[in-house]
Amino acid sequence: MTGMRASIAPFAVHGGRIELARARFPGGAGWIDLSTGISPWAYSFSVDAGALLRLPEPGALAGLEQAAAAVFGSVPAETVAVPGSDLALRLVGQLAGARTPAVVGPGYSGHRAMWDDAAMLADVPETGHDAVVLARPNNPDGRMIDFDLLAGAARRLAALGGWLVVDEAFADAGDEASIASLGWPGTIVLRSFGKFFGLAGLRLGFVIAPAPMAAALRRLLGDWPVSGPAIAIGTAAYGDHAWQAAQRVRLADAAGRLDGLLTGAGLAVVGGTSCFRLVDTADAAGLFVRLAGHSILTRPFADDGRRLRIGLPVDEVAFARLGVALGR
Amino acid sequence: MTGMRASIAPFAVHGGRIELARARFPGGAGWIDLSTGISPWAYSFSVDAGALLRLPEPGALAGLEQAAAAVFGSVPAETVAVPGSDLALRLVGQLAGARTPAVVGPGYSGHRAMWDDAAMLADVPETGHDAVVLARPNNPDGRMIDFDLLAGAARRLAALGGWLVVDEAFADAGDEASIASLGWPGTIVLRSFGKFFGLAGLRLGFVIAPAPMAAALRRLLGDWPVSGPAIAIGTAAYGDHAWQAAQRVRLADAAGRLDGLLTGAGLAVVGGTSCFRLVDTADAAGLFVRLAGHSILTRPFADDGRRLRIGLPVDEVAFARLGVALGR
Repeated sequence: MTGMRASIAPFAVHGGRIELARARFPGGAGWIDLSTGISPWAYSFSVDAGALLRLPEPGALAGLEQAAAAVFGSVPAETVAVPGSDLALRLVGQLAGARTPAVVGPGYSGHRAMWDDAAMLADVPETGHDAVVLARPNNPDGRMIDFDLLAGAARRLAALGGWLVVDEAFADAGDEASIASLGWPGTIVLRSFGKFFGLAGLRLGFVIAPAPMAAALRRLLGDWPVSGPAIAIGTAAYGDHAWQAAQRVRLADAAGRLDGLLTGAGLAVVGGTSCFRLVDTADAAGLFVRLAGHSILTRPFADDGRRLRIGLPVDEVAFARLGVALGR
Repeated sequence: MTGMRASIAPFAVHGGRIELARARFPGGAGWIDLSTGISPWAYSFSVDAGALLRLPEPGALAGLEQAAAAVFGSVPAETVAVPGSDLALRLVGQLAGARTPAVVGPGYSGHRAMWDDAAMLADVPETGHDAVVLARPNNPDGRMIDFDLLAGAARRLAALGGWLVVDEAFADAGDEASIASLGWPGTIVLRSFGKFFGLAGLRLGFVIAPAPMAAALRRLLGDWPVSGPAIAIGTAAYGDHAWQAAQRVRLADAAGRLDGLLTGAGLAVVGGTSCFRLVDTADAAGLFVRLAGHSILTRPFADDGRRLRIGLPVDEVAFARLGVALGR
């Protein structure tokens, strides 16, 4: 068991490590990557040479932020394009200057953590935290922290000059309400482009923040925060509301079909979003290794041996191979 | 004069604002952008769809840093890929935590500033500065701060826990020695990909720093600091040493030909690099407006009415149009 744990440990850091999987689990079949929450259907794009040759223009960047803000329901001036929401989270951490931040959710698991999180949010800032960072929906369980609880925590943190940071990386795929449009004081919302639009290699995200924080972030990022292709493709994609509606249906359909396959194989689906599902099983490491033996990469968790996150198979072949690997 | 100054002010912030130029100076001809130091000849590239769809792999990022370090002569582990050297400079500023940094060069001009800079470097840190930021070669005048002066300042700053930050954004184009390979304590070197390789829209740069600072920067940037296309194109370009040698010749030839055209038109060329030339003239704003009237964009400077920076014309047509605009 210890050996098995060591062999899967690098895959429990984050998803997408196909090169490493190929080396660790040599086999004949082409790999199917179900280790991320990135949509397997990408917004169709072409990369214009001009976008790579020249420095991005200020007007083009503003156009991207307007197109994204129209989707988020946020104010364009308070919607800042960033080179990936992962990097943005770290930059926001620097700018917020919090001395005692609390990170809620991702590392936790199960009902006990859920209760702790709720209690913590209800009591902040009496807990001694001057910033709270959480994901909504949460990754990997898809949990949506209660709106009123969140609003109360935001209000109390803001009153003391603290910050509520809400990572809405998977908000685009769902029906539940985002808070990006609400303009709460002391509240910073992060959005990701690559997951919903299936273009994770583009490195594009957004920070929606009160005007002074948005201005501080713009100063830190400078005049060329994202690449020319990110501006061109992002502007087109956020402006294509019909594609977004179709993508939401496509993701939800595939997630439903995946749930059917997993439960049919005797696995309990305990959460997730339309971009990935979360399985609870006695030996998640064993299931990870079994699937890897069929050249299918999934996402285990270092702190929870019962959980495996599984992304969406892209087509009939991928669904069929996953079914075979699950022993159906 | 005040009106003319106001009309050109936005072009004195930085180069590349062709959209704005088109709006301010309507005319028939297609615009020639000589307002940046970006090579008009780009490394030939293709964008692989896989590079956009997937999260960049750790091995691919390491490969990019190895290819770049081989060119810089630096240690790969201390060579950190960043989404543009402009953003990197700001992040390094955050991490260095300097309380009293001095920025040398870019905003200054002429002999007086050169003397001040040299004196300041010779006296740091007795000047009260705990960090010094400078460009080498300097932009826009191309000046190379004396190596021994630099080495002494680095040594004295490092001894007190301070930092020397050297922006080598235009070092690739020249013959003069970079300091990126020297591994000086307390010294941070920035390199830019987009200028020499003509792909400014890609947003790629590097920070070469002592191991602890490199590690801190990697922690701040996270696992996906640059885009998939940046990794793929950057790795190919830095590995293509023959192309780099040919590019240096191409840039130097064009710079020499541009000097001939400018001096032939009675203008004094007072500096620059192989990527751009710097002209000294009694009325730089007037010259800027005259060239803009011919749909040729150059780079004026807000703090110096005598200087105009002019980039390399890409071909015979561009050289000919510049010649006509200069009244030859």
